[in-house]
Amino acid sequence: MGARSKVRTTLLVFLFLSSTLLFPAGPVARADEGMWTFDNPPLKQLKEKYGFIPTQQWLDHVRLSSVRIGDGGSGSFVSPNGLVLTNHHVARGQLQKVSSPQKDYVKDGFYAKTYDEELKCPDLEINVLISMENVTARVQGAVKAGMNDEQALQARKAEITKIEDESLKATGLRSDVISFYQSSEYWLYCYKKYTDIRLVFAPEQQIAFYGGDPDNFTYPRYDLDMALFRVYENGKPLQTKDYLKWNKNGAGDGELVFVSGNPGSTNRLQTYSQLEMQRDYSYPLRIKSVKRMLEVLRKYSAIGPEQRRQAAGQIFGLENALKAWDGEYQGLLDKNLMAKREKEEKEFRALVASKPEWEKEYGGAWDAIAQAEKKQLDVINIYRYRGLRGSRLAGLALTIIQYVAEVKKPDAKRLDGFHDSQLESLKFRLFSPAPIYPQLEEMMMADGLQESLEGLGPDDSFIKIALDGETPAEAAKELIGGTKLADPAFRKSLVDGGETAVEASTDPLVVYARKYDPMARDARKWMEDNIASVETAAGGKIGKARFVAYGKTLPPDATFTLRLSYGAVKGYPLNGTKAPYKTTFYGLYDRWLGFDQKPPFNLPSRYVERKDKLDLSMPLDFVSTCDIIGGNSGSPVINKEGELVGLIFDGNIESLVGRFVYDETSNRAVAVHSGAMIYALRNLYDAGALADELEGSAGTK
Amino acid sequence: MGARSKVRTTLLVFLFLSSTLLFPAGPVARADEGMWTFDNPPLKQLKEKYGFIPTQQWLDHVRLSSVRIGDGGSGSFVSPNGLVLTNHHVARGQLQKVSSPQKDYVKDGFYAKTYDEELKCPDLEINVLISMENVTARVQGAVKAGMNDEQALQARKAEITKIEDESLKATGLRSDVISFYQSSEYWLYCYKKYTDIRLVFAPEQQIAFYGGDPDNFTYPRYDLDMALFRVYENGKPLQTKDYLKWNKNGAGDGELVFVSGNPGSTNRLQTYSQLEMQRDYSYPLRIKSVKRMLEVLRKYSAIGPEQRRQAAGQIFGLENALKAWDGEYQGLLDKNLMAKREKEEKEFRALVASKPEWEKEYGGAWDAIAQAEKKQLDVINIYRYRGLRGSRLAGLALTIIQYVAEVKKPDAKRLDGFHDSQLESLKFRLFSPAPIYPQLEEMMMADGLQESLEGLGPDDSFIKIALDGETPAEAAKELIGGTKLADPAFRKSLVDGGETAVEASTDPLVVYARKYDPMARDARKWMEDNIASVETAAGGKIGKARFVAYGKTLPPDATFTLRLSYGAVKGYPLNGTKAPYKTTFYGLYDRWLGFDQKPPFNLPSRYVERKDKLDLSMPLDFVSTCDIIGGNSGSPVINKEGELVGLIFDGNIESLVGRFVYDETSNRAVAVHSGAMIYALRNLYDAGALADELEGSAGTK
Repeated sequence: MGARSKVRTTLLVFLFLSSTLLFPAGPVARADEGMWTFDNPPLKQLKEKYGFIPTQQWLDHVRLSSVRIGDGGSGSFVSPNGLVLTNHHVARGQLQKVSSPQKDYVKDGFYAKTYDEELKCPDLEINVLISMENVTARVQGAVKAGMNDEQALQARKAEITKIEDESLKATGLRSDVISFYQSSEYWLYCYKKYTDIRLVFAPEQQIAFYGGDPDNFTYPRYDLDMALFRVYENGKPLQTKDYLKWNKNGAGDGELVFVSGNPGSTNRLQTYSQLEMQRDYSYPLRIKSVKRMLEVLRKYSAIGPEQRRQAAGQIFGLENALKAWDGEYQGLLDKNLMAKREKEEKEFRALVASKPEWEKEYGGAWDAIAQAEKKQLDVINIYRYRGLRGSRLAGLALTIIQYVAEVKKPDAKRLDGFHDSQLESLKFRLFSPAPIYPQLEEMMMADGLQESLEGLGPDDSFIKIALDGETPAEAAKELIGGTKLADPAFRKSLVDGGETAVEASTDPLVVYARKYDPMARDARKWMEDNIASVETAAGGKIGKARFVAYGKTLPPDATFTLRLSYGAVKGYPLNGTKAPYKTTFYGLYDRWLGFDQKPPFNLPSRYVERKDKLDLSMPLDFVSTCDIIGGNSGSPVINKEGELVGLIFDGNIESLVGRFVYDETSNRAVAVHSGAMIYALRNLYDAGALADELEGSAGTK
Repeated sequence: MGARSKVRTTLLVFLFLSSTLLFPAGPVARADEGMWTFDNPPLKQLKEKYGFIPTQQWLDHVRLSSVRIGDGGSGSFVSPNGLVLTNHHVARGQLQKVSSPQKDYVKDGFYAKTYDEELKCPDLEINVLISMENVTARVQGAVKAGMNDEQALQARKAEITKIEDESLKATGLRSDVISFYQSSEYWLYCYKKYTDIRLVFAPEQQIAFYGGDPDNFTYPRYDLDMALFRVYENGKPLQTKDYLKWNKNGAGDGELVFVSGNPGSTNRLQTYSQLEMQRDYSYPLRIKSVKRMLEVLRKYSAIGPEQRRQAAGQIFGLENALKAWDGEYQGLLDKNLMAKREKEEKEFRALVASKPEWEKEYGGAWDAIAQAEKKQLDVINIYRYRGLRGSRLAGLALTIIQYVAEVKKPDAKRLDGFHDSQLESLKFRLFSPAPIYPQLEEMMMADGLQESLEGLGPDDSFIKIALDGETPAEAAKELIGGTKLADPAFRKSLVDGGETAVEASTDPLVVYARKYDPMARDARKWMEDNIASVETAAGGKIGKARFVAYGKTLPPDATFTLRLSYGAVKGYPLNGTKAPYKTTFYGLYDRWLGFDQKPPFNLPSRYVERKDKLDLSMPLDFVSTCDIIGGNSGSPVINKEGELVGLIFDGNIESLVGRFVYDETSNRAVAVHSGAMIYALRNLYDAGALADELEGSAGTK
């Protein structure tokens, strides 16, 4: 599920098509539906259905024990000494970055027996949500009478930047203004930020991701998708009282549980015209592109074992994305699902139309969005195929060029991503010492250019800049072969040298990105002026209409910010029979033998050698009705006592349409059982000390 | 799958709606499709796809080692001393009949350590197919120029009776003329018949039917659905050289295997209008009725443990039927499936229309059938709700009344079912000492009458006969309470006493059936005159058209006669991932724990007690692409060497639409692994001697 690479890919490649402007439509949350913000927990639903009311203390403790990891994952503190539990697939990027041709920690796993053996992550940031403040009035107050949509958008953006900068200065905390319910609400989220993160434990990828791509997004499942980081502060393990106590008994059938994590994005409140756009253009195009990228990566992989190691991370991420998107796309192709969404929207619009003052204020919003969606079609190929695609180095080049230009401007005038409050995190990633593989970069860039050429034709102005009369392969060879950007010191020297250094640079990739930069800025501006401004305004109206018509009965769509989901541990109807609420180690060995031990159903050797010494009745994975999506990877599953009983790592195949509609019947979150993790640490990884720390029987190592 | 009770129910209750007149439509069998008659094995397909050509000797040996069991199951000889392997669910009826309130062999299983301990089955007949002869020319020759459809039907029936009688006299073998490809071909099938059948072994139903109704018709599966009978001849175990050698290694992934058994019925060659009739009337009505019967049975079951034991067999059978029909019905509701069938028929009709001589001869057949189907709608309620429904005793009463009247007539003039060649098997069932449960009979009859009353209204002539002014409950109490028909000796005295005894009888159920008899005969006649005669004639034309247009490229629809299927051992795409080709005992324990050991996922105590002493890597079940359907239950799975490698007991949920269209992608036959059976006999049932006999290391006990 929602691996970091997946979310990242989505954002970078498909920002344009997968419009993130989201709009309310339906009246009430379905049973167990909802990724609720911590300021508005589903107290009514919890009381009525489960007879449980969490206290403010309970909520605060859960929030402060929860962390956001990097740009796509979740996790939780599980010891007073800064241990953070998350998924192997969330830690995967860092495991790859600390690996080398000689030592593959992704494949072989990792265990630091002492603090000294813990490995520092090159570029991982972990955030803890400290405070939330409603700043809607201030942001909306910046819009003055007589402004058009574009002016209003710029006014709000300027105000948001101001709020973030003020907060950063006042608190020292990472300060993000988040828009919820489209633009009906704005909240200032302040995070404690940690960047000294060290690897403590990860099992072999083959057991973390047992069953590989076939079993991904399915259940019954037999994965030990766990990893442990330790957060350091001032060079020492973080001391914290906000961590989840480990309950190794897990949760029983039917038990109420919670998930606290950072779901990336959902589209439950989008308008019907936006869904149609996704169904007819966005998904088919994305899926086509990703399949093409996967072909290139597999070709690269086939060259040799080191190439396979290098490409494995991207293949994992893209296969994951492809399977998720395919499931979501099937949802959009499902006539029943679309009819449901259409009906909800029609009813909402009819209700708005029934009161003249509502109709006057909000009634035109849906058509405005539909027109904006339609307008995107004019430029669909240009936006899709113009860009520095496939290469991480090219992306770094563009970021550096824009960085030196933007930081000179007043904060409010800068491009998003370059505001003062964002610079520290940006530089942390920009100067990361993590390895980049030039041979792989070249192959990916060559095919990206080839695809652009096919999509745009040789006369397109981007193609002329990018190829300059050469073939895609020649251009990629020249650009990647000649650049020094793989060296973090060189990147730092450019940034430190500012515009002068960048303009003087003859590095071919810098030269190339310099030529492309104006085109990228134009594209961004066109989107803001023509689409984002219209959809923000119209979306805000629909959001307000929702509040006046129905009240605040639904949570906002997901925004990769902290949310609380709730539900019951529960099996579901599966292909003519029932899926059990949990699996055990017995099932792992059944699947291993059922496929004659062949990949991706093979097992790491320790699992084979120790098989007969294990208690196979130990639960391994389990499912609950908790409402999650990509970004929730690594989230803790928590019981009523606030204890950790599991670790979210996936959704089942039926949960994929949850992007558009949640259905409790068979939408399930898949988690590793808390008991399985302790049992594996003790009996398979000889990591008793670590298990002791998790169980609270040892404070330090 | 296709339990005996299921097939029986289908035939009795739904003879009218599920027209068994079947017509060819498509050009060639799909990969691995086909339940082939032994006179026409798929040699071409086997050679091309699997590079294997079975010899005539191979085919003869497989045929003579295969058996048909009762009126709905299959099996095979597996020792030189008459051991017959089949499913627990095929043996279930007999297990129930030899059980008592004191000893429940269905639930607890059974094992005869010596010949003496073997239990004689009260009314089980086993058939071995000895010969097949094409008698099409003779049957069709009976139809003379100038005969209309009705006269032609009667002429063919008379000739068929003659052929059967002659064969019976000449050979002493059970002799059945079977119509294939609708009425394009007629074959005389001669069977060696055995009626001294004894129970040797059956495991507990809870492991035979592990997972109960939820897991029924699904996979992955963990069932030991086996039972062993022994065939006796002249009071001694049958000595035979035609038995399958046991290969306890089973079959590997991708291996070519065969299934030799008796599929009950398919509808792959029906016309589109017949499918529509089934979709719009037959299935919805049947499903409604069965749900109603199940409600009554569950109510009866709830009275107490003995009632539960009595009703368990019918509940099992009806739940099985309901799940199968629901899967089939979903197939008919699937627009893609129907479009496929419609397209095939259109192409076929266009081909026929392209040659004037074909069009003249065959072109009108489809419309003739469509009209006959439509005609049935006029009488749909009458045919559905008039009848002695729900009660076995009422059925026996009617059979006795018709028996004494029919046997006085010349054979050719009798009702089907009462021909000389059929009498021996009929009497065997009629005088069966198997227990009948009057309390259950009364409850089922009362609700059957209630349903008839609701369907027909109080003024219908059947209702007047049946209720005679009473309520359904009163009538049922009187009829079942007053009858002596539960006593086989009383039934025999009526039959022996002939028409005089029957006419003089004041047994209330006999009186009732006597009044109903003319109505039943009228109904039969109406169906023959208005539907069967038309559809036989038209179907015959379509069948012939198929042969001239395409050749004999498809096997006929299933007819509960011996067929050979072939395919590969192979997993399939399942709910986003892959189903393994086999399961193991590990998986059994995973499922047991995954549902907290609760029914229907509990285990017999020996499986719990001996768990840690077993080698759980032993394969348990496996799947293949072999094309099967209800009636194939108990069929052997055979490898190229003619050895037994498995025991068919089910199809997966995706196979249910196989009634209409076979699709190799995910249609799978589910079998018990040969190794699992030997392993269980030795290590769970302490039945080493029996295992020795199966493995050929011991000839006798």
